[in-house]
Amino acid sequence: MPKTDSIFTQIHRDSASRARTGIIHLPHGDVQTPAFMPVGTNATVKAVTKEWLEEIGFEIILANTYHLYLRPGTDIIEQAGGLHGFSGWKGNFLTDSGGYQVFSLADFRKITREGVKFRSHIDGSSHFLTPESVVGLQAQLNSDIQMQLDVCTGYDTEWKKAREALDITIDWTRRAKRAWLETKDEYQGKLFGIVQGNFYHDLRKESVDALLEIDTPGIAIGGLSVGEPQEIYREFLESTAELLPDDKPRYVMGIGTPDYILDAVYHGIDIFDCVLPTRNARNGSLFTRDGQLSIKRESNTRDFGPIDPSCTCRVCRDYSRAYLRHLYKQDEILFSMLATFHNLAFLHTMMGEVRTAIAQGTFTEYRNQFMKRITGGVS
Amino acid sequence: MPKTDSIFTQIHRDSASRARTGIIHLPHGDVQTPAFMPVGTNATVKAVTKEWLEEIGFEIILANTYHLYLRPGTDIIEQAGGLHGFSGWKGNFLTDSGGYQVFSLADFRKITREGVKFRSHIDGSSHFLTPESVVGLQAQLNSDIQMQLDVCTGYDTEWKKAREALDITIDWTRRAKRAWLETKDEYQGKLFGIVQGNFYHDLRKESVDALLEIDTPGIAIGGLSVGEPQEIYREFLESTAELLPDDKPRYVMGIGTPDYILDAVYHGIDIFDCVLPTRNARNGSLFTRDGQLSIKRESNTRDFGPIDPSCTCRVCRDYSRAYLRHLYKQDEILFSMLATFHNLAFLHTMMGEVRTAIAQGTFTEYRNQFMKRITGGVS
Repeated sequence: MPKTDSIFTQIHRDSASRARTGIIHLPHGDVQTPAFMPVGTNATVKAVTKEWLEEIGFEIILANTYHLYLRPGTDIIEQAGGLHGFSGWKGNFLTDSGGYQVFSLADFRKITREGVKFRSHIDGSSHFLTPESVVGLQAQLNSDIQMQLDVCTGYDTEWKKAREALDITIDWTRRAKRAWLETKDEYQGKLFGIVQGNFYHDLRKESVDALLEIDTPGIAIGGLSVGEPQEIYREFLESTAELLPDDKPRYVMGIGTPDYILDAVYHGIDIFDCVLPTRNARNGSLFTRDGQLSIKRESNTRDFGPIDPSCTCRVCRDYSRAYLRHLYKQDEILFSMLATFHNLAFLHTMMGEVRTAIAQGTFTEYRNQFMKRITGGVS
Repeated sequence: MPKTDSIFTQIHRDSASRARTGIIHLPHGDVQTPAFMPVGTNATVKAVTKEWLEEIGFEIILANTYHLYLRPGTDIIEQAGGLHGFSGWKGNFLTDSGGYQVFSLADFRKITREGVKFRSHIDGSSHFLTPESVVGLQAQLNSDIQMQLDVCTGYDTEWKKAREALDITIDWTRRAKRAWLETKDEYQGKLFGIVQGNFYHDLRKESVDALLEIDTPGIAIGGLSVGEPQEIYREFLESTAELLPDDKPRYVMGIGTPDYILDAVYHGIDIFDCVLPTRNARNGSLFTRDGQLSIKRESNTRDFGPIDPSCTCRVCRDYSRAYLRHLYKQDEILFSMLATFHNLAFLHTMMGEVRTAIAQGTFTEYRNQFMKRITGGVS
């Protein structure tokens, strides 16, 4: 199909909020939205198998272009049949552009209009990425959703600097789109543009307008969670989301706890990802309906009940808090495996409930009840 | 059934060696022998789930009494319904007595006729174990096979010291048996006595004679792999195994590589365990028919074939050396998971072939061919 065809079908729309359900049509299958996407930086979600991700029901996971470009190299992955051939995951992959990692991980970076020069945080080697080359890398990975290269700015950036960065980002969207249209026909991955503009409403508006004019199949809200206070984050998530059209999927990076997810869904976000559910799992912090459970707590020593009695996941069916605490204390890999499975299953189940609530027109009620219990809980 | 009933049925006997097939009848099901038993020190085999162990086909795994006694404590495991209730593993558990760990791990130990005093390697706390208390601990764990407390001696022990240690070990077998007969009826685990006697043929003979008189359901050959040269190990494995009767299962600890396994089977050993297959897996050393594969080797970078083309395990079906090498280099937990699965599946498959070869009277041939290929292989 033509690369520029619409990929989003909106199904239900909440009357009391911008929350909606829909389907993103992608090369490796449809994705029911709103959806949480687990992060698989190195072409694996840490501590779980692809079969477990399938069993839980995920339809899309993330991988990080920056990491895979440096190790093992995108040419090796291309030779293996892309990320799907390499990892065996049969669902969709979303890859980021690497821009955020260059911004946060690289030892050195220099942004010019042409692209970004940086030194690898692993071995200090020099690299140069352009909007075009990043499209090419993600095509090598055969990503189902690929992100444009953009320029991230920190919280305390002054308007003039933010304006300049946005200017480059808009130019890069245009160049990315051109390069993406020129990728070979077999490559059917979809390009997402990224809204920037720092914490300036006029720049955010300008950014969205430019993106709509350039017209990418999906849009991400970038430049959030860069050190700003929570109320500023919320304000800009909401005001930026309001500017986005209904006919494209909306993506926000770095959202992965129930409160932030419910907030994002409320403001009409369709997909989000975050390392927290998996990283917290490995650190012994587990989701329950009554809030976070710290498995290492003394009180779990002889607790032969499950992590969460209302959770139907395989870990909650089969294992006690006492056993999990023991595994955690003994640094057993099985702990990371089971904890990750549970946290991901918990979020996936929650997302199913969210979609049902939106379909039934009860999303606001669902969100309120969920939040009430999760914040009031002692566990 | 009465605790002292025979638990072993010999099925086939090789004509050219002492190799044999049989069945050990245990509370959590029959065990086809010869069998390799994976080690699950902390009530989990590292980096694999119980479902994977079932999928591979294991009928018995190990757990370490010393570790579980110190953390989380045998009373907690008893309260959870024994090792089976605690871990969810439905097959058999063999537990050791802890004697070897006191010998090798504890910061301090003092052996008297009464028992062994030691300080925990974890927190320095003092503990005292007796042959009776160790039977009780393993009954709390609900072990299907439990081992007597014994006195281990190192390679360079003089005859007189070895004689004294053996004397205590024999006394402890007697006391263990008495205590075991007195465990409550619901506890159906089987006690194995341990042959000691260091590297002195007369003492080994005396040890076996005493064990046969005391009469435990199974017998283990202890005191090997304590620093002796390989030829001494072989000599004492063979000569001690020759003294053992046909009507009891024979167990040797610390055997887990194909060459040692085939040797042990040749000399009539029925069950063995070792941490090497799982530990080596985590360190990137994988079993193949052509010898050990070091996954980190540069040559695997673009090798899109499986670990072992003749292996039918899930990992060899689904993943390439290139992907596994990438996971290993990136320290991904998934590497440990997949590598452990493969190494265990490889050994389990090999054991099935060994049993078939014994049944068909072709074991010596099988062993020769296997060894020829494994030692001649370049991989």
